[in-house]
Amino acid sequence: MKQVVFGVDIGGTFSKYGLVDRTGNVLIEGSIPTDTYDNVVDYQKSLHEALEGVMIQFRDTCELKGIGFGAPNANYYKGTIEHAANLRWKGIVHFVDLFKKYYNLPIVITNDANAAAIGEGIYGGAKEMNDYLVITLGTGLGSGFVSGGELTYGFNGFAGEFGHTLALSNGRQCGCGKRGCLETYASATGIKRTVFQLMCDMTEDSELRQYNFYEITSEMIYEAALRNDPIALKAFEFTGSLLGERLADAVAITTPEAIFLFGGLAKSGEVLFKPIRESFESNLLPVYRNQIKILPSGLQDKNIAVMGASALIWKELSR
Amino acid sequence: MKQVVFGVDIGGTFSKYGLVDRTGNVLIEGSIPTDTYDNVVDYQKSLHEALEGVMIQFRDTCELKGIGFGAPNANYYKGTIEHAANLRWKGIVHFVDLFKKYYNLPIVITNDANAAAIGEGIYGGAKEMNDYLVITLGTGLGSGFVSGGELTYGFNGFAGEFGHTLALSNGRQCGCGKRGCLETYASATGIKRTVFQLMCDMTEDSELRQYNFYEITSEMIYEAALRNDPIALKAFEFTGSLLGERLADAVAITTPEAIFLFGGLAKSGEVLFKPIRESFESNLLPVYRNQIKILPSGLQDKNIAVMGASALIWKELSR
Repeated sequence: MKQVVFGVDIGGTFSKYGLVDRTGNVLIEGSIPTDTYDNVVDYQKSLHEALEGVMIQFRDTCELKGIGFGAPNANYYKGTIEHAANLRWKGIVHFVDLFKKYYNLPIVITNDANAAAIGEGIYGGAKEMNDYLVITLGTGLGSGFVSGGELTYGFNGFAGEFGHTLALSNGRQCGCGKRGCLETYASATGIKRTVFQLMCDMTEDSELRQYNFYEITSEMIYEAALRNDPIALKAFEFTGSLLGERLADAVAITTPEAIFLFGGLAKSGEVLFKPIRESFESNLLPVYRNQIKILPSGLQDKNIAVMGASALIWKELSR
Repeated sequence: MKQVVFGVDIGGTFSKYGLVDRTGNVLIEGSIPTDTYDNVVDYQKSLHEALEGVMIQFRDTCELKGIGFGAPNANYYKGTIEHAANLRWKGIVHFVDLFKKYYNLPIVITNDANAAAIGEGIYGGAKEMNDYLVITLGTGLGSGFVSGGELTYGFNGFAGEFGHTLALSNGRQCGCGKRGCLETYASATGIKRTVFQLMCDMTEDSELRQYNFYEITSEMIYEAALRNDPIALKAFEFTGSLLGERLADAVAITTPEAIFLFGGLAKSGEVLFKPIRESFESNLLPVYRNQIKILPSGLQDKNIAVMGASALIWKELSR
């Protein structure tokens, strides 16, 4: 019997699931809606039916070892989802306890970026590493710090909010209520905001000037940069430089062997990685220089959300 | 037989040692010079003789379980002291390997701030905590991050250099070669530099104006603050505010249950702790607010360097 786990990525609109083996092969994937369920109990009932539907096909060949969940504002210690802004289940949801009625197996939940970090360690580029950092550059900036082989959850389970450390004093307004948070600069949304700042500061023509704020995406900025658009290039340079500087400070705290960047923006290649590395090295304390790799995630084109969630169980079983 | 360990704090001028029991009682203390030994082998020979001299008195009542060292630029993983600026032994010194010829017992080395952090966990205020942070405010700013019960050493053993994260962009020149490092503001030296900046910026009279740069100490600034000296008060407010802001960012990464401040400056009480706490809380991400304690070290008036070094062994034996 092949050992397998379910990974479930709970998003605001859809929840994606996948049946994953120990080496990261996704045997089957599927999804159910999330936002049609007012009540988490009804949601879990539907999810359970979907998972059972999948297991019918694999019952004779696979042994299910557990179910891992990635969700916004999830708390690993308590098995809860707490005040998640983009989910309909308000307050503190005891997600794992509630789901245990369906399975007598390990069930674990954590937030998306933490799941991505564990996925990188189980299936990705950090397999041989005990100390590494995963940064997800999406709408916001998520992070998962792994030290001595263990994810840093913090005393209350909510550690790893690197996106909300200060990048620039009195800087951009952040959704969290503070100003100048790193994710207001280094994220898909952040680089878009930078483009608008540069369209104001610079006089050069740019293909990006023909689009309004809602139209522009980080992919369009990347495409423009490939065509040597001056504003797009400058936006990547600014974003990379600021992120590199902040990563140098993260190194002074946890000193990872490598930093993995994941997400749409991280697919931009050297146009982003070059300014990151330059700024990173020049801001590092000398004792750390020329030792720490900044790499694209080893799971870049895979469904890291589902895989990361599934990896939680392999991690749990390895204890 | 009472179980005991030696803690040895290797300083530039003197090396202090103490025989310490599991609850932190220092049975005896002593010291040998450090800077009279060109050669680490000769130093270790003298140290061994000193320790043996101590053990003669305790041979019948105590069982020696190991020897822990705190030293600048020490590497826990490799047992080395590497390029320590204030020691005469240059390059990479394989300190632990060399000292093993004297004892068939656990011998461990780490840097001073890491040792202080482990001491806080074994003997001090963090006995019941798995996630905490110790900041030592001395000539510089040292730090030891403990996550999930383990000190964060980083992949190369040199993690925990919080004093060299950025506090102010293009700020003060730091001894490390960078600018704006936190320790150029939040340390005994840092607050002195701040006083000189304020003597330039402000017009108010101050008792501190009668001293030159070499004369002023952080104790004098504290004494002046107690007498409501406007420049001294402002210096503490600025120092505390900046440190509080930076500690809020550290929380976003590792989320400790408590932050312990140790060292001369940390004895300043509310004149320092009040601005730290105010700035800390207002810079925290909402999910962390009103949960994380900022406390003076539980070992404040003890010899934390020797005790911390000794604690390394209890920590090692608890694995």
